[in-house]
Amino acid sequence: MLLSALVSLICKDGVTFQIFIAGILTFLVGVVMMLFTRKHRKEMNKREGYVVVAFGWIIMSLSGTLPYVLTESIPSFTNAFFETMSGYTTTGASILNDIEAIPKGVLFWRSTTHWIGGMGIIVLAIAILPLLGIGGMQLFAAEAPGPSADKLHPRITDTAKRLWLIYFGYTAAETLLLNLAGMSFFDAINHSMATLSTGGFSTKNASIAYWNNEPLIQYIIIIFMFLAGTNFVLSYFAFKGKVQKIIKDEEFKLYFKFIIASTIIAAFIIYFKADLSISSIAHPMVFGAGESAFRHGLFQVLTVITTTGFISADYTMWSPFLIVFFFGLMFLGGSAGSTSGGVKVVRHLILIKNSFLEFKRTLHPNAIVPVRYNNKAINRYIVFNVLAFFILYMLSFIIGALVFSMFQIDFISAIGLSASSLGNVGPALGDFGPVNNYAALPPLAQWWASFLMLIGRLELFTVLILFTPFFWRNR
Amino acid sequence: MLLSALVSLICKDGVTFQIFIAGILTFLVGVVMMLFTRKHRKEMNKREGYVVVAFGWIIMSLSGTLPYVLTESIPSFTNAFFETMSGYTTTGASILNDIEAIPKGVLFWRSTTHWIGGMGIIVLAIAILPLLGIGGMQLFAAEAPGPSADKLHPRITDTAKRLWLIYFGYTAAETLLLNLAGMSFFDAINHSMATLSTGGFSTKNASIAYWNNEPLIQYIIIIFMFLAGTNFVLSYFAFKGKVQKIIKDEEFKLYFKFIIASTIIAAFIIYFKADLSISSIAHPMVFGAGESAFRHGLFQVLTVITTTGFISADYTMWSPFLIVFFFGLMFLGGSAGSTSGGVKVVRHLILIKNSFLEFKRTLHPNAIVPVRYNNKAINRYIVFNVLAFFILYMLSFIIGALVFSMFQIDFISAIGLSASSLGNVGPALGDFGPVNNYAALPPLAQWWASFLMLIGRLELFTVLILFTPFFWRNR
Repeated sequence: MLLSALVSLICKDGVTFQIFIAGILTFLVGVVMMLFTRKHRKEMNKREGYVVVAFGWIIMSLSGTLPYVLTESIPSFTNAFFETMSGYTTTGASILNDIEAIPKGVLFWRSTTHWIGGMGIIVLAIAILPLLGIGGMQLFAAEAPGPSADKLHPRITDTAKRLWLIYFGYTAAETLLLNLAGMSFFDAINHSMATLSTGGFSTKNASIAYWNNEPLIQYIIIIFMFLAGTNFVLSYFAFKGKVQKIIKDEEFKLYFKFIIASTIIAAFIIYFKADLSISSIAHPMVFGAGESAFRHGLFQVLTVITTTGFISADYTMWSPFLIVFFFGLMFLGGSAGSTSGGVKVVRHLILIKNSFLEFKRTLHPNAIVPVRYNNKAINRYIVFNVLAFFILYMLSFIIGALVFSMFQIDFISAIGLSASSLGNVGPALGDFGPVNNYAALPPLAQWWASFLMLIGRLELFTVLILFTPFFWRNR
Repeated sequence: MLLSALVSLICKDGVTFQIFIAGILTFLVGVVMMLFTRKHRKEMNKREGYVVVAFGWIIMSLSGTLPYVLTESIPSFTNAFFETMSGYTTTGASILNDIEAIPKGVLFWRSTTHWIGGMGIIVLAIAILPLLGIGGMQLFAAEAPGPSADKLHPRITDTAKRLWLIYFGYTAAETLLLNLAGMSFFDAINHSMATLSTGGFSTKNASIAYWNNEPLIQYIIIIFMFLAGTNFVLSYFAFKGKVQKIIKDEEFKLYFKFIIASTIIAAFIIYFKADLSISSIAHPMVFGAGESAFRHGLFQVLTVITTTGFISADYTMWSPFLIVFFFGLMFLGGSAGSTSGGVKVVRHLILIKNSFLEFKRTLHPNAIVPVRYNNKAINRYIVFNVLAFFILYMLSFIIGALVFSMFQIDFISAIGLSASSLGNVGPALGDFGPVNNYAALPPLAQWWASFLMLIGRLELFTVLILFTPFFWRNR
């Protein structure tokens, strides 16, 4: 927040003092909380781990509303909480009608929530959730960089430092490249923070469609969306020169192939079928229709798969097929260990592998046919983990849509909102599609969306376990 | 078919000869097939079992088109095949615009396809599929009535006879009751066949809404829809006086509770929120608005859960919430061992139990926590079976919707068609909702819907296994 106050000061947007106060208030609350708990310093147990992760995120989102509320950029607390939760969970759904009218310091804070959220998720996904035994994440624990010490604390610290360095490096590189490609430095740093965290907040009302005349800018964002949706551990291997590890990674291979295949399908339809002239966002064809179809296809596929939610065009106007297609992609998600949301590629991989092996098991009931991932047989408990995650995800999606539909939100909008909030995508369908925002969502529905964003971001179990009787029962 | 010819003769509808010819043709083809294969009489192996089940259903559907085509009631072969497949799979989706204009003999044949399909499914689900090891159906194999001989053939024959007797008895009872309640004998027998098979073909253009002035008729249908969606083995226990077995059956309890809860929700919304006057099917309130809301709520919940697909009202006009709600119910399905389609209650029960146990497993990673069903710990292979089934079901649903959307069918109609065809429900959403029919579906999309109906009806594996390389490889 203090950094945002500094940005505000430099940009002379007139709200420096308010953002500064927000920072001081948050700092004071933190100091008080620290003083009250300093006596209880001991090793944290697993149960406390869940509580800290879930409530930490909620407390962050509460304090994160201060810059919006104090500057009166977002006067309503519900709206401000929604925007902050959308930021920290790297969803990128916004209730702002006129983004460009918001003071620059506040916009910088908005992008910062994405960036902090992304940082949090990298460490959670790679270092903390596997230890808590959540949704098959144990699969990647072994892969995380850092010393193989069995003490929790040094390992997390070390892993975090290495991955954050990559995260920071990517953000700096994208900022530089975007700036060189013609984007203002302010827009460049904001969009970089929103890209690497797969968040999707933009500083422009038209989002990335603002740069539809500048393919270079869009291609730079495309590259970094791809990187942000990749396991950050693989980026670490890349910098260590262990290319073999990347090429052999089954999740990466599937993620890559799926993007290529989806782009070919989308680009083909845009080129031959979609009437771009009826779309509410213009599609100037700088290098001709072929390049435009390819670029928008690739951009849209990546923005949905990586759950970034940037907008280069209104895909819901292209063809009925692409609406169903992109709706399906919302459930895919990027790689585990990336900043993306959704179910994640590796979970789909394991579930589908297991299903197809069932055919083999059916024909040879006495053979033992384990699921293999990266050439290792997977423990059946991990398959159960992944299964439980998927069922809870679908259950949350259905309940999510049912609750939205209670607010007289129509079918397509309700299921779009649920899938998008839970998957931390951002744009939904229908009334809350790519060219609309969430301002029209009733206040209670905004709280519901915030809840879905939170449970989706924290891999369901971390939050939902707090609602089970097992959790509160004495051991 | 010969029975339909007899009905045609009695009703003097003028197409007796054509239906008779259809019967003779089918008989001759059967005789030829029998003569050509009589030399190969030996014990059937598992692989041959899959081929017989899948191709048997297809050959039945091909020959079943003859009465439609020869009488020119449905001149197009594609339409006739769709109607027959919809009949045999007990889906009940129809391409007929004016049902009441069709000769009575043909209508009787149409209902007969449902009834035969329902008979086939009872035996498949309870006696054959468990032996083929499909989708967790082994769970019920032990429960099936009949001698516990280990020989396949006598057991199937015996089980089939007992269950068919119940199926026949229920159909006769419903026919009698409907007739007593004021329905013509012809309508009564047709609707009874469509109810017990959870099919949904009606002899009236307005379906069951035709009797909206006669609550008694609708309550009779409600009771038999409930029975048709219940495991027929439980009905067998009921007649044997083993009430304990029914009360303790977890699937039955959940099926029952879910219907009660859903009816309360639906009735509440219809009573307080739905503007029944705007619905395109009239809702006369014979016993007042409360009874009407309860009856339509219960009817609609049962027709969707049991995948019958009868229509008493256009629920898509009631409220956005109920559209999402009924769409969700399409995936539920009735009980295993009933004639209903969909995923089935017991599979959801096992998947959800397993997911919630995962919370326990997460907190106590060293404890062994098996899923229990009817007080027995379930073998983990059965959980894998059920998981694989669910994943394949969702995958088929998504691919199904994607293919429909290629025909420029809009989002809501495409996902509705896919869910309804796969679940053998009948009415879909949007352009193919309760008050519409499937006549507007393009021919290629009708073939696709027929395929989805078939794989949904045969529990996915039975058909899809034929497309795997494992199946055709030499052992």
